[in-house]
Amino acid sequence: MRLSQFHLNTVKEVPADAEIVSHQLMLRAGMLRKLAAGIYTWTPLGLRVLRKVEAIVREEMNRAGAIELLMPSIQPRELWEETGRWQKFGGQLLKIRDRKDQEYCYGPTHEEVITDFARNELKSYRQLPINFFQIQTKFRDEIRPRFGVMRAREFLMKDAYSFHLTPECLAREYQNMYDAYTRIFTRLGLRFRAVQADTGAIGGSASHEFSVLADSGEDAIAFSSASGYAANVEMAEALAPGARAAPAEALQRVATPTQKTCAEVAALLGVDLARTVKSIALVSESGFVLALLRGDHLLNEIKLAKLPGLAEFRLANEAEIVEHLGSEPGFIGPREPRKAITLVADRSVAAMADFVIGANAVGYHLRGVNWGRDLPEPDHVADIRNVQAGDAAADGSGALQIARGIEVGHVFQLGQKYAAAMGAQVLDAQGKAQTPFMGCYGIGVSRIVAAAIEQNHDAAGIRWPRAMAPWQVAICVINPKSVAAVDQAAAALYAELQGCGIEVVLDDRGLRSGAMFADIELIGIPQRVVISERGLATGQLEYRRRDAADSEMLNKEQLMTRIRADSP
Amino acid sequence: MRLSQFHLNTVKEVPADAEIVSHQLMLRAGMLRKLAAGIYTWTPLGLRVLRKVEAIVREEMNRAGAIELLMPSIQPRELWEETGRWQKFGGQLLKIRDRKDQEYCYGPTHEEVITDFARNELKSYRQLPINFFQIQTKFRDEIRPRFGVMRAREFLMKDAYSFHLTPECLAREYQNMYDAYTRIFTRLGLRFRAVQADTGAIGGSASHEFSVLADSGEDAIAFSSASGYAANVEMAEALAPGARAAPAEALQRVATPTQKTCAEVAALLGVDLARTVKSIALVSESGFVLALLRGDHLLNEIKLAKLPGLAEFRLANEAEIVEHLGSEPGFIGPREPRKAITLVADRSVAAMADFVIGANAVGYHLRGVNWGRDLPEPDHVADIRNVQAGDAAADGSGALQIARGIEVGHVFQLGQKYAAAMGAQVLDAQGKAQTPFMGCYGIGVSRIVAAAIEQNHDAAGIRWPRAMAPWQVAICVINPKSVAAVDQAAAALYAELQGCGIEVVLDDRGLRSGAMFADIELIGIPQRVVISERGLATGQLEYRRRDAADSEMLNKEQLMTRIRADSP
Repeated sequence: MRLSQFHLNTVKEVPADAEIVSHQLMLRAGMLRKLAAGIYTWTPLGLRVLRKVEAIVREEMNRAGAIELLMPSIQPRELWEETGRWQKFGGQLLKIRDRKDQEYCYGPTHEEVITDFARNELKSYRQLPINFFQIQTKFRDEIRPRFGVMRAREFLMKDAYSFHLTPECLAREYQNMYDAYTRIFTRLGLRFRAVQADTGAIGGSASHEFSVLADSGEDAIAFSSASGYAANVEMAEALAPGARAAPAEALQRVATPTQKTCAEVAALLGVDLARTVKSIALVSESGFVLALLRGDHLLNEIKLAKLPGLAEFRLANEAEIVEHLGSEPGFIGPREPRKAITLVADRSVAAMADFVIGANAVGYHLRGVNWGRDLPEPDHVADIRNVQAGDAAADGSGALQIARGIEVGHVFQLGQKYAAAMGAQVLDAQGKAQTPFMGCYGIGVSRIVAAAIEQNHDAAGIRWPRAMAPWQVAICVINPKSVAAVDQAAAALYAELQGCGIEVVLDDRGLRSGAMFADIELIGIPQRVVISERGLATGQLEYRRRDAADSEMLNKEQLMTRIRADSP
Repeated sequence: MRLSQFHLNTVKEVPADAEIVSHQLMLRAGMLRKLAAGIYTWTPLGLRVLRKVEAIVREEMNRAGAIELLMPSIQPRELWEETGRWQKFGGQLLKIRDRKDQEYCYGPTHEEVITDFARNELKSYRQLPINFFQIQTKFRDEIRPRFGVMRAREFLMKDAYSFHLTPECLAREYQNMYDAYTRIFTRLGLRFRAVQADTGAIGGSASHEFSVLADSGEDAIAFSSASGYAANVEMAEALAPGARAAPAEALQRVATPTQKTCAEVAALLGVDLARTVKSIALVSESGFVLALLRGDHLLNEIKLAKLPGLAEFRLANEAEIVEHLGSEPGFIGPREPRKAITLVADRSVAAMADFVIGANAVGYHLRGVNWGRDLPEPDHVADIRNVQAGDAAADGSGALQIARGIEVGHVFQLGQKYAAAMGAQVLDAQGKAQTPFMGCYGIGVSRIVAAAIEQNHDAAGIRWPRAMAPWQVAICVINPKSVAAVDQAAAALYAELQGCGIEVVLDDRGLRSGAMFADIELIGIPQRVVISERGLATGQLEYRRRDAADSEMLNKEQLMTRIRADSP
């Protein structure tokens, strides 16, 4: 492609409403233009990248034996009523009335449509197992669309749905998709982790999220380098600590006139933060609750909400705190509340001895506190904290590390939920009607583009993994049209690289070199060759990889060898 | 692809609600499944064909220098207000409210969005000319969706929009697109015509429709074999006839007791139908109108509506006819109306002498009628009829032929309409702001699949042009799993054809041969090889082209030569 015949439109200013770097860079590189909130046009440059992702996803899905079809974007309400999701899906479901006043939605996902397809098409066990996939435009009416295509309303998704006669067969296909996803993200050149997302009702590891690692990621991922173990911090189990030690200190009331946080109290008293306990006051359907966590731990609300009577809770306000504990926040604790409360202790807290708590009196804490002796045993002992770096991994493989990630894929064992709700049945080998088991497997195709940028960028712009780059090589021509030899050399190299099947773009727009180089770096082309009159005179070409600090002067043969070696 | 690992689901019965053969065959072949009125899932088989069409369209658009992007399906109301089309587009526009009560539509076309994109992106003449295209899902809320994907509500379209500084530049790109479309439909292997659709305000040939020829087509196309001339019958000009002859017969009242139509009257009187004149009674904004046509001609309502005072008209009812002409329908004519009427004569009628008309008296006609002598000259003389086979072509190239066609593409010179309405401007070389000229170029990608079937089918099913076939060759295995040599030979041939880059499908489902052959013919695979124990014994393979009457026995080498020669 010659850039003079393409449409490249880079922007210098960082757009005001772009909060994250991928959104900023996609707008600055001119990959994306906003049409409305959460709705974007993919420019020719952006689309080149999107199609690369799409092609790799398609190839690997085909290789894994999944079969592509194409379902409509507009789906009738009746199907969603069958699964109860017309109501339950919530505000993200974009509902539509046609001219005949029939109700539809713009599909945010296709479980209903594929299950309807399956109940009409799949009649016999001989047709199973089967895995259908599509790469198709979806719409979710996000209440706060932002971050560009990271959380757009209209987006491109690969979704796949498999059907099986037995859970074992589903588990095999689940593993097959897990492996396919691993190949996809590996081929895309992304650093990623398959994160255990739930150890839910269906058993085993029924759900994994595939996350692209990036400091800006919304999800915190706990993983063990020693094993494949990885889980969202919200989901990762904090292993039970060892047994509780016997009390060694006497209970002591200490003045902490201005020290309200565990860190301040620990500093004042000269004790380890891990010897302090913070009390988080909550109000739930079962009344006033104190959740107790080690001073260096964070509450995990998802884990807490799984305890009886705590499905719904909120932070207590100051009046409620004073009413139940007799103290202002900052000095509260589980000992001698003014009114009956529920005590929920994290497992680490339940195993502590000689610890520090608030005294329920302004300006005071208690130290040398021990369960049983100074306090009643807690009402609930449970894992209610987030794991943190250095904790032991739940699989026993060693210390956890924490990274941030962006979810770009999800594999899920749905079981019989949709098939049962919609009455999909197949005859087994004995001629008996059976409800099939389903898996579903999604990849956010457009989201991957943004995630890749979050992971791969620098001050100059995007640094595409080569599998996603719009072109592998940019030829930058200094002063085209003014020196014939330069133009000829550029055209010859362009033709030669194309002849080798290498995707090359020729920047013949006639910009001055600074602006040209800035554009090529911004849009992230992995390799750059500069052709100038001065270079030609020496028989050398200036070559630079996007991730190299400096350029090198190479002769033609060296150049071709380098480019061939570095292109996919 | 092995069919045992694919999802093929053919149906024997012709579905009740499928009115046309392409819809019937697409459902029977299992290419399509209905989700809701005018909304279809493309099954794996259907999608293979759709993607072939899409790929050829994309390749030729790229080759023609157009640049692909991807615009959203959901478009904000504000843009459509700018062009006035939010109201004017009519009921086909599917209007949507999101959770914040903002209004959108599901894009039925993208002039507004691309013009908005252009006004933000295109600032200088240096960026022009440019032609953007996309292949994208659209929705038109048809009041009566039918004929499957021929007139679906959700459909796949290629739309392109070009921008130019001058009308001359637009005209060049128009021709470029015309040529690209010609290559596309030629490569698809379809018989088609580029039909002049309008000779409107912009001048020259501002609009062409590309129609696939098929007896079932909705459009009647007049064309001249001697030249490239082709036009929709509604648009084709009927050339002016020669000068009017002098009267030779006397006016005569003749009894036609039961003869009401021109054909009946002509038969009774023994005159040529072309000597009779039919009177069509209409009511328009300018009152009661008689449109006069030769007995063998058909009224062209589009042409008629272009006359002054006739933009809106309807057929007169019997009471109005009696009131103005004093006679019941069947015997009416332009002579001596009871009340003042407007006479509109087709040019052929105005050139007639000694003709036959109704006498405005039940049971009577007049013969030997002549303009001037027996009748006042008509108020309007114009081309108000459809051309018919044998008429002279408007380009003077000889006699017209009439064929039926299905519109699958449209190229159009929009001029400045959208750019002006939306304030898109670019600076010219002199730094002066100019409103660009636009062209738009559409192809109904999903519709092409149906149109190809309308053109290419027989009693057994679809006969795909090879460029559109889901696979080029089907290997039918008789009794797989029972004779190892048969399985091995099939697998070896399958691998060898794949090695040659030929798309081959192996029917290893184990059906009996009749059912297997019926399926392969129904889904339209161009070439078939049968591998059976008996054939193997003789070293011969049974080969049959889908369009051949019989199969032939070939040895392996002959077979490979034949298949290679017949595959794209």
